[in-house]
Amino acid sequence: MIEQNLLPFEFRVIACRNYRETCHAIRTMVIRGAGAIGAAAGYAMAQAAMEAPAAGAMAFLENARNEIESARPTARNLFYATERVFHAALISSEHSRKEADAIADEDAAASRRIGELGKTLISPGAGVATHCNAGWLAFVDYGTALSPIYMSHRDGNKLFVYVDETRPRSQGARLTAWELHNAGIPHAIIPDNATAWYMAQGKIDLVITGADRIAANGDTANKIGTLEKAIAARYYNIPFYVAAPTSTFDTNCPDGSHIVIEERDPGEVLYQDGLTMDGKKERILVCSPGSPALNPAFDVTPAELITGFITEKGMTIV
Amino acid sequence: MIEQNLLPFEFRVIACRNYRETCHAIRTMVIRGAGAIGAAAGYAMAQAAMEAPAAGAMAFLENARNEIESARPTARNLFYATERVFHAALISSEHSRKEADAIADEDAAASRRIGELGKTLISPGAGVATHCNAGWLAFVDYGTALSPIYMSHRDGNKLFVYVDETRPRSQGARLTAWELHNAGIPHAIIPDNATAWYMAQGKIDLVITGADRIAANGDTANKIGTLEKAIAARYYNIPFYVAAPTSTFDTNCPDGSHIVIEERDPGEVLYQDGLTMDGKKERILVCSPGSPALNPAFDVTPAELITGFITEKGMTIV
Repeated sequence: MIEQNLLPFEFRVIACRNYRETCHAIRTMVIRGAGAIGAAAGYAMAQAAMEAPAAGAMAFLENARNEIESARPTARNLFYATERVFHAALISSEHSRKEADAIADEDAAASRRIGELGKTLISPGAGVATHCNAGWLAFVDYGTALSPIYMSHRDGNKLFVYVDETRPRSQGARLTAWELHNAGIPHAIIPDNATAWYMAQGKIDLVITGADRIAANGDTANKIGTLEKAIAARYYNIPFYVAAPTSTFDTNCPDGSHIVIEERDPGEVLYQDGLTMDGKKERILVCSPGSPALNPAFDVTPAELITGFITEKGMTIV
Repeated sequence: MIEQNLLPFEFRVIACRNYRETCHAIRTMVIRGAGAIGAAAGYAMAQAAMEAPAAGAMAFLENARNEIESARPTARNLFYATERVFHAALISSEHSRKEADAIADEDAAASRRIGELGKTLISPGAGVATHCNAGWLAFVDYGTALSPIYMSHRDGNKLFVYVDETRPRSQGARLTAWELHNAGIPHAIIPDNATAWYMAQGKIDLVITGADRIAANGDTANKIGTLEKAIAARYYNIPFYVAAPTSTFDTNCPDGSHIVIEERDPGEVLYQDGLTMDGKKERILVCSPGSPALNPAFDVTPAELITGFITEKGMTIV
């Protein structure tokens, strides 16, 4: 997998040699993004199936499943993939590997289809806002929120993308901007604070984000800040779309109040990583020393703020 | 003046020996915050009066006034102070110095009164959100948004303050957190993306921010992101107050569409300053190299989103 913590300053591919290493990569966000976490979780479960001792295989697999599921508690795709591969592993480790492959292939196909459907929502010359990174880095390929943007751009649409930083981990400024820059798609990084202001000026025609878990009633957990963008979009009557494969929908979860929100290390807010002027990697303290920080990784956007869902099986525009 | 660019890592007081140095300090945000900019602009104008040559004094003063006014185009207090001291300078440089002193004294008195009035809005144990820094650093003393918080805390109210980072220059994380930490007021730094999420959970009972310019109809220019917080507050029916001295009201400006919004260097978004683990100051690139950034310094919150104004002459609760 790509070591995403090193992006955009270094592109390095790493190997996870056993399920514990894969879990660690998920927990530390070496790999992140709904679909990529799902695919990695599927392979972690398959790795566990291959590592399981003949005696006590069931206990080993159950323990591995718990470990994988606790790596990122909010991501629906992680649970979806782990469950599927766990059941395949009860037949044979070869079955589990094939199931993990199938999940990865389905993810890429779904992302591609989301792009084909979603691009019809983007008018010529549109200003599009997105949040966090739901591009090909976050999935097996194409992405969800960025997939319609890629497809529309390939069709010749001169769109413009407003990429908010997505503090504290800056997946917008570091990953989405990196993807769009590499693809030659016109864009600008803006502070998270500026989205509503560009909406007020009529520069943003629609918002597309990804999702980490969608409850049965449509309430959607996604990167912290998604809620604020959705509220601002509603105030300005700008359509707000959530792009996600159907594997992100959790029909067992009645509504957003049942979604567990991951609290991450406050150090992610207090410190920031980057490159010094002479090209060295450095971590610096960017806040007042001695002040505490809070770091919820996700928030829940109520269904009433979501104009529509873009899935591989079709779009539901409310 | 305090070199605020060095805070919270170093406390250094610097002297500006002539009006050009004071202008430079305003432009480079050595001094920032509505009231502090106003007081500094008044003194810059007084310095110009003392520097003016006998021959061509009027042209010198007019030129100086233009330079001072162009240092930060959005700040109302800058124009207010410059105009008052300019007219005093037409009498004598001694008059101009006294006028600058009067403006500074009035600012401190107004801030104190804003605190006394505004503290009545804060219930026991309230969660208060603020944005950017409108504390004593941003004024001659006390501050505006933070003044009611200081007064309420001194009265024994166990309030809790949610301090958003306020990217890109992080005045929340660097200055407001530093002020509150020094004053022993319980608080936490949160990402700008998290405010709506804490509102959704019922943790925030009111929002108080400062203002850089208030139009005749109540539209308010303040640090970028204020608009997004106001929209979120409205969605959750949380009162949103603007605390500002009457000198921030610009009755010649009919509404927010006439307020000039300062665009600052995109480098403020792309790079960030802080302290390395071994205590050295360092500037690092925090975004994808090659991607452009946009950096509007302020936004305009429409009057309809503002629950009330807290001024030294009373509160107007809509």
